[in-house]
Amino acid sequence: MRSLYLNGAFVPEDEAKISVFDRGFMFADAIYEVTAVLHGKLVDFDLHLARLARSLAEMALVLPLDNAQLLAIHRELIERNALHEGLVYLQVSRGTEDRNFLYPPAGSPPTVVLYTQAKVVLESPLAKRGMNIIGLPDLRWGRSDIKTTQLLYACMAKEQAKAQGADDAWLVKDGFVTEGTSNNAFIITHDGGVVTRELSNALLPGITRGALIALVKEHDLRLEERAYTLEEAQNAAEAFITSSTSFVYPVVTIDGHAVGDGKPGVLTQRLRQLYIDHALAVIA
Amino acid sequence: MRSLYLNGAFVPEDEAKISVFDRGFMFADAIYEVTAVLHGKLVDFDLHLARLARSLAEMALVLPLDNAQLLAIHRELIERNALHEGLVYLQVSRGTEDRNFLYPPAGSPPTVVLYTQAKVVLESPLAKRGMNIIGLPDLRWGRSDIKTTQLLYACMAKEQAKAQGADDAWLVKDGFVTEGTSNNAFIITHDGGVVTRELSNALLPGITRGALIALVKEHDLRLEERAYTLEEAQNAAEAFITSSTSFVYPVVTIDGHAVGDGKPGVLTQRLRQLYIDHALAVIA
Repeated sequence: MRSLYLNGAFVPEDEAKISVFDRGFMFADAIYEVTAVLHGKLVDFDLHLARLARSLAEMALVLPLDNAQLLAIHRELIERNALHEGLVYLQVSRGTEDRNFLYPPAGSPPTVVLYTQAKVVLESPLAKRGMNIIGLPDLRWGRSDIKTTQLLYACMAKEQAKAQGADDAWLVKDGFVTEGTSNNAFIITHDGGVVTRELSNALLPGITRGALIALVKEHDLRLEERAYTLEEAQNAAEAFITSSTSFVYPVVTIDGHAVGDGKPGVLTQRLRQLYIDHALAVIA
Repeated sequence: MRSLYLNGAFVPEDEAKISVFDRGFMFADAIYEVTAVLHGKLVDFDLHLARLARSLAEMALVLPLDNAQLLAIHRELIERNALHEGLVYLQVSRGTEDRNFLYPPAGSPPTVVLYTQAKVVLESPLAKRGMNIIGLPDLRWGRSDIKTTQLLYACMAKEQAKAQGADDAWLVKDGFVTEGTSNNAFIITHDGGVVTRELSNALLPGITRGALIALVKEHDLRLEERAYTLEEAQNAAEAFITSSTSFVYPVVTIDGHAVGDGKPGVLTQRLRQLYIDHALAVIA
């Protein structure tokens, strides 16, 4: 049984309980982060801390833990659960109070929970096989740049993909792809441009997205941050997704239409390896 | 201390706890209903049950309780908590499982929680004073017709209203008012038309909205179900909101602009009384 962190204490997972009046449960008034773990160490944890700080600020949430404490909790969880490869999940909600849309008084304690999940990251089968994805309308709220727990539509979209025999969905708003359900969406043009949507309120500023963009520039590949349609993606040379726990997964079909030759792309595989090299170099 | 219902048992509120792995907490994968209580009895409970059934169907959620059982739980909570006036809140989430966007296997038990809140309904001060509201962009997801717990933006909007010294906000999408943060929005034109937005995926099919529309028709008033702008609302003869626990509240200013003479409207007050008469006639 896993050991979890909940509001200052490490507890067995079957004792990690919160009130039904928790605002995370009643209002989705909560944010989260997911950090990958390789060889028992955290990947780009500083960048997750920076995004966490941004989410907290956008939500006017105050976390009574500093970055050193958060790092110590992450590391202790990894050790207590002997986690070699997988992730640490962190969620902060606006605490517990009788139901009222208005925020509790300033200084009310948030709910802080962290736990580990073991997951095959480096040798993931999807990285070799590639993903089959479908397009769906992006029905999410207007601040998808904040990493909140309003994830119902992401769940619904993944279920719809599964029902169609696919692995995941890309979301389309006003005619253009925003991102995947829980990942950023990239295509590679036939003349070698690496294309992903520019940041805005419509998509998450993915940590892996940012690291991958840095690698693209560093290796003298051409980056294009711009909108593109699902049709352009279907007809691109390659396509892939990035996320903190998938790293880079090739996309091999979109709505049943093969991307390129329908196999994981060569440049995509190179980018995955470059990202893995980066991750292994920065783990701490 | 209140007695709550949680997954088959009545428990003291400080023992009403759920797992941190509850999908309501992690994904906002949950729906709810709120039924008003007058004189210890439920207002239009059958209509709430019908909307609950619709929410469950839209979410592919299965509730292991039939309507008779739900009624019995509501009544027992009212009795255990000696509730004279207020509400019963019901929430159903897709249960507890280690974090995974995909739904748990069919047959997995949902989380079911119900509790009471005492609230002054009939003699609410806001019904006499009227509400000051502000307009805000409607940033909610594209299925606001489903009564889910994805309520973060409603919380944020109410906080923004409070910060501006107002009582609540009306939400504007593509130039037209959809609804209030937790209520339906009505205006009355200078020639006596009672106007509210037609139902769609953009707004909640309010139980009180529906009952009020029936009363409007029954009393030979003119109903217009159509879109209107915030400017039309500001320049209307009267404005008001409906919700299950507010019934009818006048709106007296919109973004600081007085509606009519800036006092609760005459027809609005008549409609509130008609609704109260209806509620007292149907409580059970």
